Amino acid sequence: VITHTVAAKMIEAAQKKAGELGLAASVAVVDDGGNLKAFARMDGALLGSANAARRKAYTAAVSGMSTAKWFDMVTGNTALGMILGTGMEGVLFLPGGEPVLIDGVLSGAVGVSGGQADQDAQIVDAALAQIG
Amino acid sequence: VITHTVAAKMIEAAQKKAGELGLAASVAVVDDGGNLKAFARMDGALLGSANAARRKAYTAAVSGMSTAKWFDMVTGNTALGMILGTGMEGVLFLPGGEPVLIDGVLSGAVGVSGGQADQDAQIVDAALAQIG
Amino acid sequence: VITHTVAAKMIEAAQKKAGELGLAASVAVVDDGGNLKAFARMDGALLGSANAARRKAYTAAVSGMSTAKWFDMVTGNTALGMILGTGMEGVLFLPGGEPVLIDGVLSGAVGVSGGQADQDAQIVDAALAQIG
Amino acid sequence: VITHTVAAKMIEAAQKKAGELGLAASVAVVDDGGNLKAFARMDGALLGSANAARRKAYTAAVSGMSTAKWFDMVTGNTALGMILGTGMEGVLFLPGGEPVLIDGVLSGAVGVSGGQADQDAQIVDAALAQIG
Repeated sequence: VITHTVAAKMIEAAQKKAGELGLAASVAVVDDGGNLKAFARMDGALLGSANAARRKAYTAAVSGMSTAKWFDMVTGNTALGMILGTGMEGVLFLPGGEPVLIDGVLSGAVGVSGGQADQDAQIVDAALAQIG
Repeated sequence: VITHTVAAKMIEAAQKKAGELGLAASVAVVDDGGNLKAFARMDGALLGSANAARRKAYTAAVSGMSTAKWFDMVTGNTALGMILGTGMEGVLFLPGGEPVLIDGVLSGAVGVSGGQADQDAQIVDAALAQIG
Repeated sequence: VITHTVAAKMIEAAQKKAGELGLAASVAVVDDGGNLKAFARMDGALLGSANAARRKAYTAAVSGMSTAKWFDMVTGNTALGMILGTGMEGVLFLPGGEPVLIDGVLSGAVGVSGGQADQDAQIVDAALAQIG
Repeated sequence: VITHTVAAKMIEAAQKKAGELGLAASVAVVDDGGNLKAFARMDGALLGSANAARRKAYTAAVSGMSTAKWFDMVTGNTALGMILGTGMEGVLFLPGGEPVLIDGVLSGAVGVSGGQADQDAQIVDAALAQIG
């Protein structure tokens, strides 16, 4: 599982990377139940980024799939996206959410919102690098 | 009506079929009021499958129509799907939900999420076979 | 305003017309605040018809516009329909909801769900005929 | 921040402009937390305008972006609009919501619903003119 200590390190690493990119971002870490374990909204981050980061993490946790893959799938099939978007509570199919695997087991997820898709991805990667 | 005993048999049969297919699925049975009567999320099933199975069963129960038919209708008419998806609470238009008819009367529904559409359909069929 | 007595007559007239058409329908009457004033779900009507009738009436009441007109507008502009469908709580853009005008003033609405669009419209008309 | 006094002046100016245009509108002012600070629904304004005005203001506040820009973006990319519309609570991507900047800092927003897009924009401008 993702301990509180690990979750805090993930948040810290993500914030550091966001700072290096000159961004103010929201970062969310959820556990294997999809529930929030740690969260930070950096000073200056838009209010909307909080919801987005949390939903990206939740989406990755309950599906075991990157939200970047969801985004590609959904933009390629609007009808399917509409079905899933209105039928699955709490999801957001924007890039920036990645599942966390520990010893190959889906153990939670991290979600980031604050920059462009490639910037959010870099911040996510910084968080994932804290997983042993 | 779908008794607790019958609902439990439906869940058991569905889980057995899922196991044979090498899948971990969620299975939901709702009564003629659309309310959950029995439910199981197998070990290893994604968190998102729970919501999906419950919504598929609910959709079939309140409409009296297979969610596979809803899926075909909605993907063929995105505007209609958008209207219905945002205007009907609790629905999900993905295949895997079937109404339960007892003596020709709509008595509830079963919903499954865990595999591809044809796999979910086989699991649904295993559950429906428990209806006398 | 729509009194309880008038609302009850509207429901009764609508049910009578539905019966003549061989349909089991849900009928909802809302007041000038968009709140439910009277409602009936006929025996045999699908569960989903209750939500649909209530939402159609609500949509007509808060917009002052027929849901048949909303349906035409939304199906002709899916992006607009998506914006409105996800951004306006409680609405449903399917035909079968009509505002009630008393002395030219928007005073509430009636919504019907149970048959095809033209059948629902006939049932709505029967209800509206009760307005002096 | 937007003080209560300033918010009240914004509402008053907006109502005055709406009256000049012969419209009955709803006007909402939200603070830097996206929460309602002041609101008015003019006599005769449709019920639906209240929700719309509040959501437009909220959308501008949490994104720091005009809802007119959101509208253009979303109508040009329905898939993205669907993702955002279903995944971001409380938003509405219709023109008529503008962020309020005080000394260059995002400090809240104003939202208007009552007329055509260009009319709502004039009413929004009247409210924004109250910001020093």
